[in-house]
Amino acid sequence: MTALTGRGRAPSGAALSADEFRSVFRGHPAGVAVVALRDGGRPVGFTATSVISVSAEPPLLAFSLATSSSSWPAVARARTVAVSFLAADQADLSARFATSGIDRFAGGGWHSLGSGEPVVDGAAAWVRARVVERTPVGSSHLVTLQAVAHHVAGDASPLVFHDRGYHRLGGTTRV
Amino acid sequence: MTALTGRGRAPSGAALSADEFRSVFRGHPAGVAVVALRDGGRPVGFTATSVISVSAEPPLLAFSLATSSSSWPAVARARTVAVSFLAADQADLSARFATSGIDRFAGGGWHSLGSGEPVVDGAAAWVRARVVERTPVGSSHLVTLQAVAHHVAGDASPLVFHDRGYHRLGGTTRV
Repeated sequence: MTALTGRGRAPSGAALSADEFRSVFRGHPAGVAVVALRDGGRPVGFTATSVISVSAEPPLLAFSLATSSSSWPAVARARTVAVSFLAADQADLSARFATSGIDRFAGGGWHSLGSGEPVVDGAAAWVRARVVERTPVGSSHLVTLQAVAHHVAGDASPLVFHDRGYHRLGGTTRV
Repeated sequence: MTALTGRGRAPSGAALSADEFRSVFRGHPAGVAVVALRDGGRPVGFTATSVISVSAEPPLLAFSLATSSSSWPAVARARTVAVSFLAADQADLSARFATSGIDRFAGGGWHSLGSGEPVVDGAAAWVRARVVERTPVGSSHLVTLQAVAHHVAGDASPLVFHDRGYHRLGGTTRV
């Protein structure tokens, strides 16, 4: 560790506490997605604020998921998933797919693609994607996906997560 | 490829075009960060809308960077970087650190940590981090970092990127 942190002033191997780390990302806004799949016929899904574009050509995206998450065993087996990008009026659905110990699909508001993956009704957009790689990183996995089908709703305003709450997008700011 | 896409209706190996893929992520809002480092004494930095939290314990974050990017050779060598999370009034600085062919640091608005990494003045927060892993993914790399130092400005509103423009955060939306 000494060599790796040699240029810093922090003690070798120093790292932020979990609370310190969370205080940084609490202030970092993110779009909200629901990642969903079929696991032996059963629908599985969860809210993710970590979906990012990795490359447009080939069309690759990624998200992170805690290995301790109830959805991880299904994601670990999945060949394909659907990622629904939520619209500004879907905070309730986001909260439902982030709640533990309930049947997240019981409340409706979704449908299945012909290929089986659940997609959120009225989402701003969705992609169907093939799982390319699951990379263990600390107590999580980074899951890389290749997009194979998509739909974009032309007029949807997106949902934004920030400081443990849901927001609409605000006005533009000049460059 | 057939086995991997076997549950879908798309032809084997089908994937979104780069334009189709971009149309999906154009609608997905993101916070804005500047990732910066010292490369043999020279400051190097770029705007990133792909910074995500991966795990709080250990404190790991990640971002993606095109391997063709002018900053990639320096990131490929870096042991540590600083990630500055931009505030709502920093759209101009974000645009500058996303412009090719200029000296992005010449305009000022930044300072160096004692350990050398450039940090944006007035950022909403920053972390100094050790590079843990550089994973090639398509035409990009996913870079995983461990946070070793941080600062959070208590009162900063964040900058949001969406549909090729900069926004403030809007009002809260109920759950």
